[in-house]
Amino acid sequence: MNNGMIRFVLSWILRLEGLLMFLPCVIALVFREEEGWVYLILAGIAVAAGVFLSKRPDNMEIYQKEGFVAVGLSWVLLSCYGAIPFVITKEIPNFLNALFEIVSGFTTTGASILSDVEVISHTSLFWRSFSHWIGGMGVLVFILMLLPMGSGGSHMNLMRAESPGPEVTKFVPRVRTTARLLYKIYLGLTIIELCLLLITRMNWFDALCITFGTAGTGGFGVLNSSCGAYTSVQQWIITVFMLAFGVNIGFYYLMLTRKASEAFKMEEVRTYLLIVVAAVALISWNVFRSYDGMGHTVRDAAFQVASIITTTGFSTTDFDLWPSFSRTILLTLMMIGACAGSTGGGIKVSRVLIMVKEIKEEIRSLLHPRSIRKMRMDGHVVQDQTMRSIMAYLVAYFVLFWVSFMIISFDGFSIETNFSAVAATLNNIGPGLDAVGPTQNYLAYGAVSKAVLIFDMLAGRLELLPIFVLLYPGTWKRH
Amino acid sequence: MNNGMIRFVLSWILRLEGLLMFLPCVIALVFREEEGWVYLILAGIAVAAGVFLSKRPDNMEIYQKEGFVAVGLSWVLLSCYGAIPFVITKEIPNFLNALFEIVSGFTTTGASILSDVEVISHTSLFWRSFSHWIGGMGVLVFILMLLPMGSGGSHMNLMRAESPGPEVTKFVPRVRTTARLLYKIYLGLTIIELCLLLITRMNWFDALCITFGTAGTGGFGVLNSSCGAYTSVQQWIITVFMLAFGVNIGFYYLMLTRKASEAFKMEEVRTYLLIVVAAVALISWNVFRSYDGMGHTVRDAAFQVASIITTTGFSTTDFDLWPSFSRTILLTLMMIGACAGSTGGGIKVSRVLIMVKEIKEEIRSLLHPRSIRKMRMDGHVVQDQTMRSIMAYLVAYFVLFWVSFMIISFDGFSIETNFSAVAATLNNIGPGLDAVGPTQNYLAYGAVSKAVLIFDMLAGRLELLPIFVLLYPGTWKRH
Repeated sequence: MNNGMIRFVLSWILRLEGLLMFLPCVIALVFREEEGWVYLILAGIAVAAGVFLSKRPDNMEIYQKEGFVAVGLSWVLLSCYGAIPFVITKEIPNFLNALFEIVSGFTTTGASILSDVEVISHTSLFWRSFSHWIGGMGVLVFILMLLPMGSGGSHMNLMRAESPGPEVTKFVPRVRTTARLLYKIYLGLTIIELCLLLITRMNWFDALCITFGTAGTGGFGVLNSSCGAYTSVQQWIITVFMLAFGVNIGFYYLMLTRKASEAFKMEEVRTYLLIVVAAVALISWNVFRSYDGMGHTVRDAAFQVASIITTTGFSTTDFDLWPSFSRTILLTLMMIGACAGSTGGGIKVSRVLIMVKEIKEEIRSLLHPRSIRKMRMDGHVVQDQTMRSIMAYLVAYFVLFWVSFMIISFDGFSIETNFSAVAATLNNIGPGLDAVGPTQNYLAYGAVSKAVLIFDMLAGRLELLPIFVLLYPGTWKRH
Repeated sequence: MNNGMIRFVLSWILRLEGLLMFLPCVIALVFREEEGWVYLILAGIAVAAGVFLSKRPDNMEIYQKEGFVAVGLSWVLLSCYGAIPFVITKEIPNFLNALFEIVSGFTTTGASILSDVEVISHTSLFWRSFSHWIGGMGVLVFILMLLPMGSGGSHMNLMRAESPGPEVTKFVPRVRTTARLLYKIYLGLTIIELCLLLITRMNWFDALCITFGTAGTGGFGVLNSSCGAYTSVQQWIITVFMLAFGVNIGFYYLMLTRKASEAFKMEEVRTYLLIVVAAVALISWNVFRSYDGMGHTVRDAAFQVASIITTTGFSTTDFDLWPSFSRTILLTLMMIGACAGSTGGGIKVSRVLIMVKEIKEEIRSLLHPRSIRKMRMDGHVVQDQTMRSIMAYLVAYFVLFWVSFMIISFDGFSIETNFSAVAATLNNIGPGLDAVGPTQNYLAYGAVSKAVLIFDMLAGRLELLPIFVLLYPGTWKRH
């Protein structure tokens, strides 16, 4: 393994995190909060340590294995260092709780251990929401933009390990160009949402944090009522942007390059929109009786559906009080998740789509044993190797799901609580049902369960492999 | 499609079911119950209709497609006709409920809609339990023993479609010989259990019904307390035989042919026993405090674990009152199920084992991209085609699971109830948790939900494909 290169990547992560920590200091200055000093000192230390440790290795190549290890370790380092400010400011004195909160931030989960967010300083609230924005697009992708590295293959190996979805589509031949383009789209959408929220007269601090939460599909709010207190126009804006950030970013690339018709032909995007419309319709129909009018019903249904399928986790109502059918639909959306190549989590619509196609294919090949199997997605044949990786992914997903579910059940909460807690962390959603519902939080779980859920959030964000590779003994063997 | 042959198979099913219906008449004679007449008349009609319709077709070949269609339709016919006695005797006047009960019987599920089984006549109780024994080994396999058919391939196609597990291992070259051997082992174990229960002075009728329930891993009891009222020795006998019927029948074949060492090397059997021991230990430790002694704790834990993992569904205690951790372990065992090639349901231990191996394989191939993938089971390389079928099976399983879960949630029961209801029917277990727990029943679900659960029981018993094939439009197209 190329240890020198991994150390080099990690030192850059530290440097980057230090730089990003200067931003909360600005917020502290505006609100004249003492917590700013903690962030300032920690930022300085991180940058200094990063610069000091970044010795350029002779061999700059990153192979597949190093790619996964580098990404896995980067996220662990990012999280552990990012949790320190909460501990020092004593806003979350327990390190495990602080780690839970910041991992939830970086992985864009939005699950909280705080029962009252309104007592937290603006500085820390900003850092918490900002972590969503950072984690949304991925830190390694960001570093790729800055760093001149070895050949194209090296970049691909890092990017593949960090990006969500079964396959990184190469829009443009050079990875750095792709990375820049992705960030431009991301930044562009962020700015548009921020402006729209400001136009509707949302307070600027709320608008900033909510936009970060939407862009990263994170879900940390700054009010105890999440988004319940905002006006209906603001809620609709957030709904639309949650959905927009759940779309495969390749869609926007095609839109920008004036291939709009091709963009709307993407099977994944069409399926995603179809699921959203169906879920909103079914839930509206199911909860209609308890509302005062159609407008309010559809607004609440749409907001919750958008929030859950994109794995954001904002809420405008306590959906845990909805009837079983609606809650089951939400649980289903939790598992499906957003599009591949978006900031959202979950299994991803494209994987679900390929799964369903595979079942059809299996039945067809039973009926016509001599015909050749060929599955198509967007007109291209899906390779057997891709197929098999997706299947292995799903299996690993369900195994991790079930093991986590068993371990946390030991704390004695209801099966609904535990099941939804694992679903909400592994899919990076945030709130679950029952005792971890939208008006509740994760504080009551024991230390072991919290550790398991932290692991699930990381594994979910990085799509299992980079985290599994770290735990696989063979990774650390010398050859 | 060879329609003549399918009609021929169906007529034999009717004839067989008629013959089997004469047995409850014997019970009616012993207990002098009027219900016997209903069974006698229906048996006569079935045999007559069967004989009348069985016109030997010119072409006796059954291809893969016909195999699945024949098996699927056979089970539907078997169930619909088998439900009629309950309706006519007015013991279960509603046809859907009667169908639920008998499908639960034939598929060896053991889920009931009866709140008080002790008011049912002995004749009907016998028919209900006997259906477990019939369904356990499969009706088509039975017909294979009686019927001289086309070449070996035809038999294989029928047997493959009806047998549980990823692959039918060919122990002996000729299928009829295999079928006979399987039934001999099945019958042998049944007789041993019956004798042991009679020796411990269990009433003969109870012993007979309980043995049928154990052999088919069904779970219909004849007392409202299921097996709670039997002595501890009797409970241990049932425990051991439930476990024995959950073992791959190939194990006994190897034992009988004096290859005991080879039998104990079967990876699936070892894993199965390991899971059982681990689950009993964990549950005993978890529930110990609420019991009066170690003996009673282990007995109850072992009985419940054996009952759930083999998907039998008997109970000696209300395990729904156990703490979350134990209930979650039981839910896990529900999904895993027994060994392939046993009468038990569930995903099957061998599939779970192959799944876990595939994850390891995927990580290894990431770390060593150039190495060749080869997964072994019992020393043999698992073929890619087998791998892919298993994966497609799992995917179809989860899709069906989730769709059923969504539909039945509309009746408004808790998520725990609905989730466990689907798990308990799709895996052919019987009792679930909460409102369908061991002391409850399925009567309260609405008609649509009951239809879904009936579908799940059939799909679970036949391992999805024969039932999916019936619904796939391509099956019925002419070429």
